Amino acid sequence: MLRVGYPSAISVDLLRDFALEVEWIALPDGLDHQIKIDVWIPDPYPTRAIRIWPHLRGVRLVLSLLAGTEWIPGVVGPHVTICNAHGAHNVATAEWTVAAIFALLKHFPLYLDIQRSGIWKRRFEAPAQYASITQDPRPHYPPVMLEELSGKTALIVGYGAIGKEIERMLEPFRVEILRVARTARALPTVYPVSDLNALLPRAEIAILILPATAETQRLIDRPQFALLPQGALLVNAARGPVVSTDALVEALRAGRIRAALDVTDPEPLPEGHPLWSCPNLLLTPHVAASSPQFAANALRTAAGELCRYMAGEPLRNVVRAAV
Amino acid sequence: MLRVGYPSAISVDLLRDFALEVEWIALPDGLDHQIKIDVWIPDPYPTRAIRIWPHLRGVRLVLSLLAGTEWIPGVVGPHVTICNAHGAHNVATAEWTVAAIFALLKHFPLYLDIQRSGIWKRRFEAPAQYASITQDPRPHYPPVMLEELSGKTALIVGYGAIGKEIERMLEPFRVEILRVARTARALPTVYPVSDLNALLPRAEIAILILPATAETQRLIDRPQFALLPQGALLVNAARGPVVSTDALVEALRAGRIRAALDVTDPEPLPEGHPLWSCPNLLLTPHVAASSPQFAANALRTAAGELCRYMAGEPLRNVVRAAV
Repeated sequence: MLRVGYPSAISVDLLRDFALEVEWIALPDGLDHQIKIDVWIPDPYPTRAIRIWPHLRGVRLVLSLLAGTEWIPGVVGPHVTICNAHGAHNVATAEWTVAAIFALLKHFPLYLDIQRSGIWKRRFEAPAQYASITQDPRPHYPPVMLEELSGKTALIVGYGAIGKEIERMLEPFRVEILRVARTARALPTVYPVSDLNALLPRAEIAILILPATAETQRLIDRPQFALLPQGALLVNAARGPVVSTDALVEALRAGRIRAALDVTDPEPLPEGHPLWSCPNLLLTPHVAASSPQFAANALRTAAGELCRYMAGEPLRNVVRAAV
Repeated sequence: MLRVGYPSAISVDLLRDFALEVEWIALPDGLDHQIKIDVWIPDPYPTRAIRIWPHLRGVRLVLSLLAGTEWIPGVVGPHVTICNAHGAHNVATAEWTVAAIFALLKHFPLYLDIQRSGIWKRRFEAPAQYASITQDPRPHYPPVMLEELSGKTALIVGYGAIGKEIERMLEPFRVEILRVARTARALPTVYPVSDLNALLPRAEIAILILPATAETQRLIDRPQFALLPQGALLVNAARGPVVSTDALVEALRAGRIRAALDVTDPEPLPEGHPLWSCPNLLLTPHVAASSPQFAANALRTAAGELCRYMAGEPLRNVVRAAV
């Protein structure tokens, strides 16, 4: 029977729900002896997974519980097939993206500060670090306290399953959507990455949701920040290295843009890093997909792949085939 | 020609866009002499509007720029017709509601605290005031860092134009919607207010978006908080007096519920009020509708009413007719 290793912290009840004819091997975090398994479901925390790997023997297939698998090839080498959890975290990741956009447009960081000060005041009485950085030459009365998402233009960089889910969730807000992906497509129009710089000046909101690869490293660097409109909102729900952190810190400190990040480069972000204290920033510590549905959704995707593997059918979510 | 008084702080360019055959009379905040006008567009801040009123003569029609008009009848008396800005702020108010729901489900207040501490940590390492108050007996690995909106049940109390807009915006999140209004309806099912208590136990999210009237005062009081599920999220985008503040403070302090409020009772909330320091609360100072689109949207609604008034047609947004 196929031996499938999984992190012992995951409830075995969840695995049994899938009723697969495999032998489930729980791999404890402090594993200190060799274990023979055929298929490895690594711990979603890479540091834990990497500690386990030297004790594993016979692994032919890795089924990641995450969408991003960038650390795996370097650890397991070329003779193992790697699949990701394609689709499992679409809803949670897309929801975080919409939530983060709203938190910044509605100026919730400011209003939380006001709430904690315990004094009823509004944006025009707020500390200087909350001065508006958007371009709006018109006089306003009553004063502007927050912004509307409806009617804005959003650029989705990486138009895969999660990018499409984000577009679906933005639908009721009448957002004009621009799409960029590795390969151009039609119906709807998806522009190639080579058009990115031409599209950035229209992006009031720029959403990064593309895989971290050699080609996407620092895709958003000084020239790209310079092309964004004044006060634009950059949302990174992808991976930290897609953005140049130095250029991001510069753009935030200069009051050029706003940003919402669930990922950073480096990660974890060390104490004292300048990003922590940048203005117009919401930073969450890589938690977007970590909802109560995480394990069940990711294991359902892995179980589907296992069924196909046992039946000798082609796998669906291969991100790197064994050589 | 009809004389229409408006707050001088509002840009006259906005008014001219409507090309109405009326005489626009700018009313400065410090007005100290009597002015004869036929129609009054009061300042959206009631304290300013109330200061102006004693100097106005001849007013037959009040066109409010807001949806809520609760202070107006007591000030202008029974011989003036009062219209509200029905529909003008639907998008902004509904957006705030969705944004506030997301801010609490994604635990952004916690993550902003973590960001400001400058130490990369996650929810399981968070201060005790952020302990989860939701009911979830299952063990979770990886640990739960935030929640999903998708799949939750939301009760919309007040199913008017803004309530419908909120439902439209929740559509992509596959939220089960329960609706309550003054009068029951079918297609979709709208329950009467008398069914409120029977519906509250199902409301993971309870959204208040109904007018403040004698009947709705303290509609949500101790018995209603007791009926909500453990960890439910109460959202008040209506008016403060719809909720008993004492009962709300009790429920928050007891860790029974979470809340997002754009309105309070009293308002403004005084310094030292216990609500300021309640846990599991997001409080914004009555800003939901104050977007850059506020004045243009509200004046467009008022201009429509003015056209009908001049043409002798029935008005559409009368909330209290003159006797």
